[in-house]
Amino acid sequence: MIARCLRLASFSESAEGTLRTFLCPAMRECYLEIAGWLKPLGVESRIDAAGNLRGVYAAEEPGAPRLLIGSHLDTVPDAGAYDGILGVVLAIALLEELQGRRLPFAIEVLGFSEEEGVRFGTPFIGSRALVGRLDDPLLETRDPHGISVRSAIEQFGLSPQEIPQAQVGSDTLGYIEFHIEQGPVLDQLKQPLATVEAIAGQSRLEFTFSGRANHAGTTPMHLRRDALAGAAEWIETVERVARAVKGLVATVGKIEAVPGAANVIAGEVRLTLDVRHASAEIRSHAVSELIARAREIAVPRELSVQETAVMDQPAVELDLFLRQEIEKAIRKTGCSAPPMVSGAGHDAMILAERIPAAMVFLRSPGGISHHPDESVVAGDVEKAIQCGLNLLDQLAASPHFCKSLNSTRG
Amino acid sequence: MIARCLRLASFSESAEGTLRTFLCPAMRECYLEIAGWLKPLGVESRIDAAGNLRGVYAAEEPGAPRLLIGSHLDTVPDAGAYDGILGVVLAIALLEELQGRRLPFAIEVLGFSEEEGVRFGTPFIGSRALVGRLDDPLLETRDPHGISVRSAIEQFGLSPQEIPQAQVGSDTLGYIEFHIEQGPVLDQLKQPLATVEAIAGQSRLEFTFSGRANHAGTTPMHLRRDALAGAAEWIETVERVARAVKGLVATVGKIEAVPGAANVIAGEVRLTLDVRHASAEIRSHAVSELIARAREIAVPRELSVQETAVMDQPAVELDLFLRQEIEKAIRKTGCSAPPMVSGAGHDAMILAERIPAAMVFLRSPGGISHHPDESVVAGDVEKAIQCGLNLLDQLAASPHFCKSLNSTRG
Repeated sequence: MIARCLRLASFSESAEGTLRTFLCPAMRECYLEIAGWLKPLGVESRIDAAGNLRGVYAAEEPGAPRLLIGSHLDTVPDAGAYDGILGVVLAIALLEELQGRRLPFAIEVLGFSEEEGVRFGTPFIGSRALVGRLDDPLLETRDPHGISVRSAIEQFGLSPQEIPQAQVGSDTLGYIEFHIEQGPVLDQLKQPLATVEAIAGQSRLEFTFSGRANHAGTTPMHLRRDALAGAAEWIETVERVARAVKGLVATVGKIEAVPGAANVIAGEVRLTLDVRHASAEIRSHAVSELIARAREIAVPRELSVQETAVMDQPAVELDLFLRQEIEKAIRKTGCSAPPMVSGAGHDAMILAERIPAAMVFLRSPGGISHHPDESVVAGDVEKAIQCGLNLLDQLAASPHFCKSLNSTRG
Repeated sequence: MIARCLRLASFSESAEGTLRTFLCPAMRECYLEIAGWLKPLGVESRIDAAGNLRGVYAAEEPGAPRLLIGSHLDTVPDAGAYDGILGVVLAIALLEELQGRRLPFAIEVLGFSEEEGVRFGTPFIGSRALVGRLDDPLLETRDPHGISVRSAIEQFGLSPQEIPQAQVGSDTLGYIEFHIEQGPVLDQLKQPLATVEAIAGQSRLEFTFSGRANHAGTTPMHLRRDALAGAAEWIETVERVARAVKGLVATVGKIEAVPGAANVIAGEVRLTLDVRHASAEIRSHAVSELIARAREIAVPRELSVQETAVMDQPAVELDLFLRQEIEKAIRKTGCSAPPMVSGAGHDAMILAERIPAAMVFLRSPGGISHHPDESVVAGDVEKAIQCGLNLLDQLAASPHFCKSLNSTRG
């Protein structure tokens, strides 16, 4: 499985490290590789109109309902090999471990096309299609080259008009996602796996500080309206505000100074803000405070500030029944199953809008993620497979799970 | 002349505003346009091996020496229409004003290919060729696409092996450059023109702050090694240090956060520092202090800092005789001729290594430069033309100037 993750990491649109954004050319190689792994299992894969890779492992009987298992195939720039990918590779490994055995439900492997929001600034394009939220405003969002999501889909050879068919049907039992934790908690607890109780809410904004571009040699300091000096003061404030509140994280990860030359005072700076907390109230209060601080910093510097909300994702609680079954499945592997709140957003929180969804976290050594040094422990991956097989057996035997299907069908 | 400047500003390699870097495709259009203006004056233009446009307006007699007049043709990103260009257009206007009249010396119009340092991070590529300093290390410098100066010259159809022939010969009397001030001094003095006494020294460095890229949602604030937060603290320090010393300017104009995604803590930040002052001691002290401060900021944040000196240009005094003649020529137009120190670097300071060089500054309304709002006052341009014609007449009649030629020839 680790070798498969590393193999997929080699499919990149960047010469320097792994980068695979929504429907980039490297994504096609990724699809082909995974299709090659699914084929020997009798699973034909297809790409839906939102670019999600999907392949159904048949149930005992035709017409049976299905359980979705998967994660996302896209990456951040200069990514590690496991974020997202591990969950897809693990779903395939589970099918392999079944060794042809059939369950009362089919298993649909899902490789979501887009979760990170790198290309279009808006994340979850793939999973939004499954819940009917890949809508017109999102389809018209453009990447830095002016290409819309719709055009990207067409250029890849897919049909935007078929997006409604990508939605989960009434025969879908739920969604299970295995994912690396991407944080230091399990590493500090010395535990391989966790059940995820909820996913923290997340605000993402774009800020623009505007001043006046001018010559760096001839403009005295007191006559400057330096957008970068103002933005720098604010970045420090972001850090200070987040440090002061327990559990709050706030990040400026992207910055651009315009015109962006060594000998020109920056006339404009564009930068992003990402704020997360388990409490919606604390999160929205932090966002308001940071907007207010930006304005305060701008005034004496004769700058103006504009901000745009790109995302305002409320916290999402995952399905209680599935969480309890995951907890049992983990305990059967001999490990404890600490409950965790995820600081990162995941496709599971989008699927949870429509169907029962749950997640299993795998330990991230050193808490390192979104970095080439991102890793997993081989033994943890084995435990995750065991947990997954336990879970499938439990669900296959569960009257509750069948009942939930019947009620969905009704 | 203003219309000509605006016309040249339309030749850009960027769809958004004017940008014309060393030997970019738009530079070819610029050359052709200027050649078209020179031709009716009987001046054939050529492009030397460093990409400089050159055209000689013949003297009274063949074999006479030459005076160089010009400025640069390249621009910063999102540039105004006058920085550099005005000096080239003004040289052509002077020839037009001569109305066929010949002087005891030829006039060579010069449009330097590169002064701003945008494409390769190193400025003065064009004028360095005239003083024999377009050397191998500079020829091997690469742009962000990995193209060297040498390759850029070859790809444009020029011959790097002919660079030595671009040097000024022993028949060259001196160099005169008209240029906008790019600062607020003349505007505050309500004067159209100034003589430039000296050009301030300039240090340019590149800094890299390195921490660790990590997930913005799952990495608690106290476990971060955020390179952008550290860089922001330092940018504030740069501003504070420069504000505290009279006449000192220090600028961070370019910044890049890597990997540069909204949901990833920056693992690396690369940024530039530009420091200028008339005193070499104050300048180098400021640079040392800012390097030390960067290291101090890095330690508690577990970041590392590396810096590279890109330029260390000492202050340059311009030619005394030419300055005095310029002062006289300005006064004859009815204006005062305030002496100024240029905070910006100019090709004249490179030429001054080999030949007498001097400059005339034109007022920059609002002190605005390196910005699309950069402007000139039409009346000031007229005064500059008058000043230039006065200067040519003075030099033609000057026994000192002839003597300087003889001594050069000797």
